[in-house]
Amino acid sequence: MSRFFTDRFRDLEPYVPGEQPRDRKYLKLNTNESPFPPSLQAQRRVAEAAKELQLYSDPEGTALRKKLAERFDLSPEEIILCNGSDEILNFSFAAFCDENTPALFPDITYGFYPVFARVNRLPYREIPLREDFSLHVDDYIGVKGTVFLANPNAPTGLVLGLDEIRRLLESDRDRVVVADEAYVDFGNESALPLIRSYDNLLVVRTYSKSRSMAGARLGFAVGDPALIRDLNTLRYSTNPYNVDSMTLAAGLGALEDDAYNMANCAVIVENREYLYRELKKLGFSGPRSAANFVFVKHPKLGGKVLYLALRQRGILVRHFDKERIRDYNRITVGTREQMDALLKALREILEEV
Amino acid sequence: MSRFFTDRFRDLEPYVPGEQPRDRKYLKLNTNESPFPPSLQAQRRVAEAAKELQLYSDPEGTALRKKLAERFDLSPEEIILCNGSDEILNFSFAAFCDENTPALFPDITYGFYPVFARVNRLPYREIPLREDFSLHVDDYIGVKGTVFLANPNAPTGLVLGLDEIRRLLESDRDRVVVADEAYVDFGNESALPLIRSYDNLLVVRTYSKSRSMAGARLGFAVGDPALIRDLNTLRYSTNPYNVDSMTLAAGLGALEDDAYNMANCAVIVENREYLYRELKKLGFSGPRSAANFVFVKHPKLGGKVLYLALRQRGILVRHFDKERIRDYNRITVGTREQMDALLKALREILEEV
Repeated sequence: MSRFFTDRFRDLEPYVPGEQPRDRKYLKLNTNESPFPPSLQAQRRVAEAAKELQLYSDPEGTALRKKLAERFDLSPEEIILCNGSDEILNFSFAAFCDENTPALFPDITYGFYPVFARVNRLPYREIPLREDFSLHVDDYIGVKGTVFLANPNAPTGLVLGLDEIRRLLESDRDRVVVADEAYVDFGNESALPLIRSYDNLLVVRTYSKSRSMAGARLGFAVGDPALIRDLNTLRYSTNPYNVDSMTLAAGLGALEDDAYNMANCAVIVENREYLYRELKKLGFSGPRSAANFVFVKHPKLGGKVLYLALRQRGILVRHFDKERIRDYNRITVGTREQMDALLKALREILEEV
Repeated sequence: MSRFFTDRFRDLEPYVPGEQPRDRKYLKLNTNESPFPPSLQAQRRVAEAAKELQLYSDPEGTALRKKLAERFDLSPEEIILCNGSDEILNFSFAAFCDENTPALFPDITYGFYPVFARVNRLPYREIPLREDFSLHVDDYIGVKGTVFLANPNAPTGLVLGLDEIRRLLESDRDRVVVADEAYVDFGNESALPLIRSYDNLLVVRTYSKSRSMAGARLGFAVGDPALIRDLNTLRYSTNPYNVDSMTLAAGLGALEDDAYNMANCAVIVENREYLYRELKKLGFSGPRSAANFVFVKHPKLGGKVLYLALRQRGILVRHFDKERIRDYNRITVGTREQMDALLKALREILEEV
């Protein structure tokens, strides 16, 4: 820290992204990336866009918002594009929370939420999930604040049903509920159709996982046009050209070829079920994930021990050294071959225990 | 605005970027873009990167920071990459200003500075440029606050010499000076070499103008490693993957081919001098710009009138409806052909007056 750094942020502890080591080649099952390359149409669109980089990107993302509107049966005014969904989550904390409106989210969820609250200097409250990591809407009803719900949740993979989300929205129409649907394409029902009925619902989506575009940084949020305007006020006050031309082009191309992406998601779902079954045979247990990862523990192995043993074998998974989930590891679902390599390593590790 | 929007930002007036109309094809001389495409090596690198978008971008930007360090004789720890220089300017306001340390900048400068101050809820003070738009360092000496200096300044194009910057840095080593060098490659001397002598200097650069990458959104800042760490604390607390893989690749490719970019800058400088001479013959006057634009007025034409007359002829320039500079227009320097088209239109307009 420099002697010039403002006191406001001296205690700020930044988010720690999943490790991206470069010391050797790993089987990366730690950051929930897709094992499949982006669609060829996305790649073609990028190559075209690269020829015209001398011009600013369209700050409105007009063409992509139009395409997204068609794809999801929305109007462009209901959509904002962002540099990854993290950026839009940050804006949502800034826009819809304040001193009297704390952020509310589970104790076990996306680890960036408390950081967003702190960097925006906002009060927040972590509401514990139940023993089985399930979220009960009743725990939020009557509690004042803006709700941030990863759905499916990370790192558990558990889903909150649409009926429950509707009940949460109904219970207080004067507070915003942000549904962070980063992992929705792996078998979950999206809350998107609810935005017409509830002007207090913001749905946040990303291209990172289901459209193989983690490296392109493209997220979008959907909600009542008034909510979207609020977020645009912050976007135009910080970084109006937040999404570059290549990312806009890739986003368009990916939708033009979306059958490819959806087929990949189906493969991931299949592999997840396969992995879950095989892990169970080895004695692992964990919540039934609806995402592109599983969250499991083993009675004979500590979470950190397993993480390290896999790492030594060239396989990266994600371990959170945090109360309640220390015994677990979050493992990204990849190709069948990757899953078999993982299972082989796990069998070896278990034999040595 | 929605009924959910926080009171904190109700009065926030976002920055208004230069218009990007899509109703017809314009000769765009309004946003200081380069008329030349990005280097072929940048394009090739992008096409390669597009094949692997399923993986997250390197949040450290290791390869590009290494290359930048070589190019500018720096160490990678002295460099932070960002999603355009706007993002880094925003972080700099947040990191180095607070209630007791206002932001200081000229009354006539990059219009985003007051917005960055307001979105971060920071006090700021605009210090008037002299009558001829020159900046006098004495006006800042003894005034407490973090200084933001566009150098060359926009929209005037005027330069503050390194000796004066050094005098400013010397005068108070306990405050940060941010030198925003977006336009430095068009004939100005960079303050980069000073960062080793002054740990209170941050130099902000962009690929947008001189490297034909406005649409790729790549900026970087250079300073003492402690300053860079402060900015990284904010980056990792808001959007760690702020620079995507394609942009990182383009940035690397552009440096591998930097002779191309520097040759383009030389052409722009030549065309600027040509344009300036020809404009003078037509009766225009304005400061001697060291950037890729000129800032001129005409005794017989109001600034807005000229802007509208050019617009009608399919030429966009930038007019700021703001005290002291209302009579002027900022005109981007492009190819010789573009400049001749502009001059032809100006001659026609002047004949009609």
